[in-house]
Amino acid sequence: MGISIGIMGYGNLGRGVEQAVEQNPDMNLVAVFTRRNPESLRISNKQARVLHMDMAGEFIDGIDVMILCGGSATDLPLQGPCFARLFNTVDSYDTHARIPGYFAAVDKSARTGGKTSAISIGWDPGLFSLNRLLGEAVLPRGHEYTFWGRGISQGHSEAIRRVKGVKNAVQYTVPLEDALKRIKKGETPDLTTKERHLRECYVVAGEGADLEGITRAIKTMPDYFAGYETKVIFISEEEFTRDHSNIPHGGFVIRSGQTGQNGAGNKQIMEFSIKLESNPQFTASILTAYARAVYRLNNEGQIGAKTIFDIPPAYLSARSPGELRRTLL
Amino acid sequence: MGISIGIMGYGNLGRGVEQAVEQNPDMNLVAVFTRRNPESLRISNKQARVLHMDMAGEFIDGIDVMILCGGSATDLPLQGPCFARLFNTVDSYDTHARIPGYFAAVDKSARTGGKTSAISIGWDPGLFSLNRLLGEAVLPRGHEYTFWGRGISQGHSEAIRRVKGVKNAVQYTVPLEDALKRIKKGETPDLTTKERHLRECYVVAGEGADLEGITRAIKTMPDYFAGYETKVIFISEEEFTRDHSNIPHGGFVIRSGQTGQNGAGNKQIMEFSIKLESNPQFTASILTAYARAVYRLNNEGQIGAKTIFDIPPAYLSARSPGELRRTLL
Repeated sequence: MGISIGIMGYGNLGRGVEQAVEQNPDMNLVAVFTRRNPESLRISNKQARVLHMDMAGEFIDGIDVMILCGGSATDLPLQGPCFARLFNTVDSYDTHARIPGYFAAVDKSARTGGKTSAISIGWDPGLFSLNRLLGEAVLPRGHEYTFWGRGISQGHSEAIRRVKGVKNAVQYTVPLEDALKRIKKGETPDLTTKERHLRECYVVAGEGADLEGITRAIKTMPDYFAGYETKVIFISEEEFTRDHSNIPHGGFVIRSGQTGQNGAGNKQIMEFSIKLESNPQFTASILTAYARAVYRLNNEGQIGAKTIFDIPPAYLSARSPGELRRTLL
Repeated sequence: MGISIGIMGYGNLGRGVEQAVEQNPDMNLVAVFTRRNPESLRISNKQARVLHMDMAGEFIDGIDVMILCGGSATDLPLQGPCFARLFNTVDSYDTHARIPGYFAAVDKSARTGGKTSAISIGWDPGLFSLNRLLGEAVLPRGHEYTFWGRGISQGHSEAIRRVKGVKNAVQYTVPLEDALKRIKKGETPDLTTKERHLRECYVVAGEGADLEGITRAIKTMPDYFAGYETKVIFISEEEFTRDHSNIPHGGFVIRSGQTGQNGAGNKQIMEFSIKLESNPQFTASILTAYARAVYRLNNEGQIGAKTIFDIPPAYLSARSPGELRRTLL
């Protein structure tokens, strides 16, 4: 039988989870829930049902883990605590500043329902957070650097699309090579986010639009671009469709530390990096692996909200502990 | 007070643990145990005692975690199970093929004594194993590549030193740049260890030694060098002392996977790498972080042998779970 999975929300992330579940023979997809008209949704999986999200309550006994694929702005703050009482859940809540409050709300619901919820699972927060923790624990005397990119920032892309005269736009966050190189060599400069990243904007302008005006509007936009090294490149609609339809991303977490006697230290560098052709599919794959962990934790009676910090890595693998020791250790 | 640490064995690794404990304000070193005459040993820590290993039994109540710093060939197979009954322990047992048996022996002892033991902690086995597990769990459809180096292999260095006419030698295992590049680009070639690594040998020859003979003897040595791309470089004693006295190492674990619909997959690459100026000090730093975890697990009644797969990452950090969620997630 395996682990019965439900998907709540069917955007890029939900579709990614559907595909990830297919790669895991110990899981099966039971149903996809949507706030749209279920009739309007076509999914690839032939066995799974497509239902309105209001129907979820009827699947309490049929779904082992509900993977919440909504956004952090408006969906998860409501759905997370709501569904954590009914189902074991996994989500990718990523509003860093609000994680403590979200954790508390989900934890309370999950404990009320006797369920287990893994929150803020993905790559940042998620695998990057895990590597920040490992780096700090192993090399307490050191500096940590997180670089994002090269990849698309949806928020920045949207901000550009709101500029007058812009027809379409996409923004790539790009780590500054020079900063990255210095840190990989063992230097430990103090660098702000702005000093670590470049913002690359591909813009399709409307006919007769004021290109200089658009460029100026982007480069001086407070919060989003002002203070950043920003490049604005105008392209045609065709180029846009041809070259910028994927959702790549990537990034680095680097810990640069020193060990040994005070003063005569040895440099030690730990680095975790990812290079993704599809950001949502990768996040979906992480959510799916953590669904396995949540299922097992709940079976053992470990209820409540968990983060990536709380979950023993063995719980992610379909292999038994003995097999893991034989094959991967 | 903090966590009271004992060190069993005072070679490079034991000294590294002594230095690592100093970087962790929640720990204090109680004693170093040695099989040598304790009078002959000078340690940096002024408070800690130096004692013969036979005295360890008298510190059962005074040491929270004993970090076993002996070697895997002869020390740990005896010391691991022996001390696991008396103390919470951490060790770096690294004979991959014998880990299951070692785990069983330590587990039995630890359970008898109500203690907790983390075995095979370090970077490989250890952090590299953790990344192999994460890679496989997140990207089940994929290939995994472990590269070691650039770094010194003690076993290979010793093998060269046994060659007639060799006065001193050191061998660096070096990842083959070309293989590394292909894999980082997303190719998934089938490559043996020999096709991933180059062996670089720096040799000080005795006076009048047959250099060609030495080169041939090294390059054709079965198990160690035959079949590898091997470079032999003769250097002077002075160069040897000047350029090869450190113990650097490094390596990469790369998972190259595919997500998305069958056939139209997106490439996804996860990479973990380290670059170390001191291999034993880095391993020692990992052991020390896991000592904190072992202490906490035992306080919670989680006894028996554990590997890096079994331990929730939060247990490694001196920060509280709430603080971790606020600061590192």
